[in-house]
Amino acid sequence: MLKGIKGNVIYGNNPHDIKIMDNHYLIYDDNKIIGVFSNMPDYFKNIYVEDMGEKLIIPGFYDLHLHGGQYLQCGVGMSKQLLEWLNDYTYDMENKFDQEDFSEKVYKIFVNELGRVGTLGSSVFATTSIKGTEKLAEEFEKKGLRSYVGLVSMERNAPSYIVTSYEKMISDNENFIKKFKDGNLVKPILTPRFAPTSTMKGMMALGEMAKKYGVPVQSHINENKDEVEWVKKLFKRKAYGDVYNECGLYGDTPTLMAHGIYMTEEELKMTKEKDVILVHCPDSNLNVRSGIMPVRKYLDMGIRVGLGSDIAGGHKISMTEAIVKCIQLSKLNSVFYPEQEMISFSEAFYMATAVGGSFFGRVGKLEKDYQMDCLIIDIPQIYRDYYDLKDCLEKYVYMGDDRWIYKRFVAGKEIDIL
Amino acid sequence: MLKGIKGNVIYGNNPHDIKIMDNHYLIYDDNKIIGVFSNMPDYFKNIYVEDMGEKLIIPGFYDLHLHGGQYLQCGVGMSKQLLEWLNDYTYDMENKFDQEDFSEKVYKIFVNELGRVGTLGSSVFATTSIKGTEKLAEEFEKKGLRSYVGLVSMERNAPSYIVTSYEKMISDNENFIKKFKDGNLVKPILTPRFAPTSTMKGMMALGEMAKKYGVPVQSHINENKDEVEWVKKLFKRKAYGDVYNECGLYGDTPTLMAHGIYMTEEELKMTKEKDVILVHCPDSNLNVRSGIMPVRKYLDMGIRVGLGSDIAGGHKISMTEAIVKCIQLSKLNSVFYPEQEMISFSEAFYMATAVGGSFFGRVGKLEKDYQMDCLIIDIPQIYRDYYDLKDCLEKYVYMGDDRWIYKRFVAGKEIDIL
Repeated sequence: MLKGIKGNVIYGNNPHDIKIMDNHYLIYDDNKIIGVFSNMPDYFKNIYVEDMGEKLIIPGFYDLHLHGGQYLQCGVGMSKQLLEWLNDYTYDMENKFDQEDFSEKVYKIFVNELGRVGTLGSSVFATTSIKGTEKLAEEFEKKGLRSYVGLVSMERNAPSYIVTSYEKMISDNENFIKKFKDGNLVKPILTPRFAPTSTMKGMMALGEMAKKYGVPVQSHINENKDEVEWVKKLFKRKAYGDVYNECGLYGDTPTLMAHGIYMTEEELKMTKEKDVILVHCPDSNLNVRSGIMPVRKYLDMGIRVGLGSDIAGGHKISMTEAIVKCIQLSKLNSVFYPEQEMISFSEAFYMATAVGGSFFGRVGKLEKDYQMDCLIIDIPQIYRDYYDLKDCLEKYVYMGDDRWIYKRFVAGKEIDIL
Repeated sequence: MLKGIKGNVIYGNNPHDIKIMDNHYLIYDDNKIIGVFSNMPDYFKNIYVEDMGEKLIIPGFYDLHLHGGQYLQCGVGMSKQLLEWLNDYTYDMENKFDQEDFSEKVYKIFVNELGRVGTLGSSVFATTSIKGTEKLAEEFEKKGLRSYVGLVSMERNAPSYIVTSYEKMISDNENFIKKFKDGNLVKPILTPRFAPTSTMKGMMALGEMAKKYGVPVQSHINENKDEVEWVKKLFKRKAYGDVYNECGLYGDTPTLMAHGIYMTEEELKMTKEKDVILVHCPDSNLNVRSGIMPVRKYLDMGIRVGLGSDIAGGHKISMTEAIVKCIQLSKLNSVFYPEQEMISFSEAFYMATAVGGSFFGRVGKLEKDYQMDCLIIDIPQIYRDYYDLKDCLEKYVYMGDDRWIYKRFVAGKEIDIL
């Protein structure tokens, strides 16, 4: 059914242009945008239009890397070293998700929080528990948010209570894929945690499954120097990316690779050729002392870069935080490497909306034939009195919070927040 | 009158020790803490005690550097270069504060926001407007928050509409000091914006005023490399700090110097000897591309380092953000300079509470004879179920917000938030 909303429509048209259409009509038919109009066309005169007044109508945010099984531990143990943190906090917590009442309770909060902060789509690592991961997918379905949900595959190099045998990993993945592959908003994504916790045999099987079912892939790559050395030694390969690539897990189906700080030139070339999206997670890179991703260099090469909160390596679930930290770290990078120009606000906003959204289909822009996903942002009057719409958008991203979000729409349906 | 509160009392005892007293009684007499007890002593049996249940009782936060006149522009124009930002946004906005209705409206929001996020004391740059600055001091008094309020002194090197003549600067400062120097919670602080916008003659006069009235001083120092060169050239001195020191503005009375990223060894020695507090403003340093303060080096030298939000160079008014960014930047610094160990959570928490508080007297710890300033923090039940009190404190700082603050007390009185 045709419907409309009216307000100040704003979105990232390309990385260098934030398109601003003040006081426009956005018309949609069920889940899809029909168009944005300055005046209501005659043939739409009779449809229902909700007037959002002076509010901003912007795309949703799309978080391309985060761990649902780590949500509770956001901001805890942040002074610890990575391995200590995983052992003291993470693995133990992830293990609890095999208990259905626990996973239901926590994932309900997690999914609600994603919606609250305007993350309308996300690509999530759950845990190795098939029961817990199904619960997560169900919570996303109930809430009406887009998600790629990943059953984490781990065969080794982690505590025994959290790894899975090769056989169980394969059958769990098959079952999970079959159950959710025809989902509308919620779909499965193959998720080897990272190369060192998988075997070549295991990853080969996952790569075949990816092709067989046409399922995307997500994992971690080149996050810190020790990890890179470990992978090269463990798999006797020249580069980290070669491991995934040999297994059919590097761009043979749509692929997200988180972090990618220490990429070789060959890996970057392959990333570009196979159109793998690198996911920049600035807060996490700071918290676990990884370093700074040279985002400008990658963008100049034509590589697609999205953003992730990386809960709970990152401690803030809102993508507005990832946008700001991406800009801040790029500024710092430009102090150290003046040839790498900072990432502008429009570029970072585009990464969190249009680039992130593109992983979910025609999502992340407010244009004809895009999915009707958007946020309605209520800017406090005092700021509207003194700043123009573009400044108000920047202000919301830098200092606003979920209380500034008036409504959220996914595929034309309003999302209820608890 | 004697009163008490009961709950989990937590504070920074020293930079390396967060003291945790679960389920304790904090007894106070009007504005001062009498003691913290595990069991209620007999002689206090009849006093009124408010039971805070499982909530945390922590010190308030003390923000040692921010600009009240820039509050509205938080998060606007953040991609601009510093000078462009000042000219396009800041000076014009600061100029409006001479209009009493404008300054009253904005400062009311600003002061309320400080209270809302738990900043119970602050040292603020207002603007060059005496009318506006008085309004700010009055708003702090009405709200019951601690503050050092600074009438900004600028004689040159800024647009004409915002600088003041030497004569007016002197008389405005004298009048402002006389009016507020005997204040209880709100007091004046001499505030040359930074050396380049003052003359030696002007700063000499301010230095004399500082001594005459026993008033503290705040300014900026060594924020970025161009500025440092400009100061050396403008004043024909070897170092930035020498200018302030010659004028009696560097530790002759209690002194706050913001940023201090590019300090010479001689300046650091003088800073230590004269016990000047350097104020680290990590978000601002990122936003305006200044660099990273080597906090660990300064602490190792015995220099006192506090934290500031530096609104609106920084975009977040809460000191919890400054704590997190201080830790994050120190981690990054330790990646580049491994000899500079990261700042721990307890150290950064101590900086925002005890070091900041010390500028206001016996403030910032929950101990006998300290002022009764505290925040009551309500940790969501789900986190209390899985994490201990110290983890819960870290979680509040990393991912909580003002909605987790149940009550705020300054000098024994509860603060009302609009």
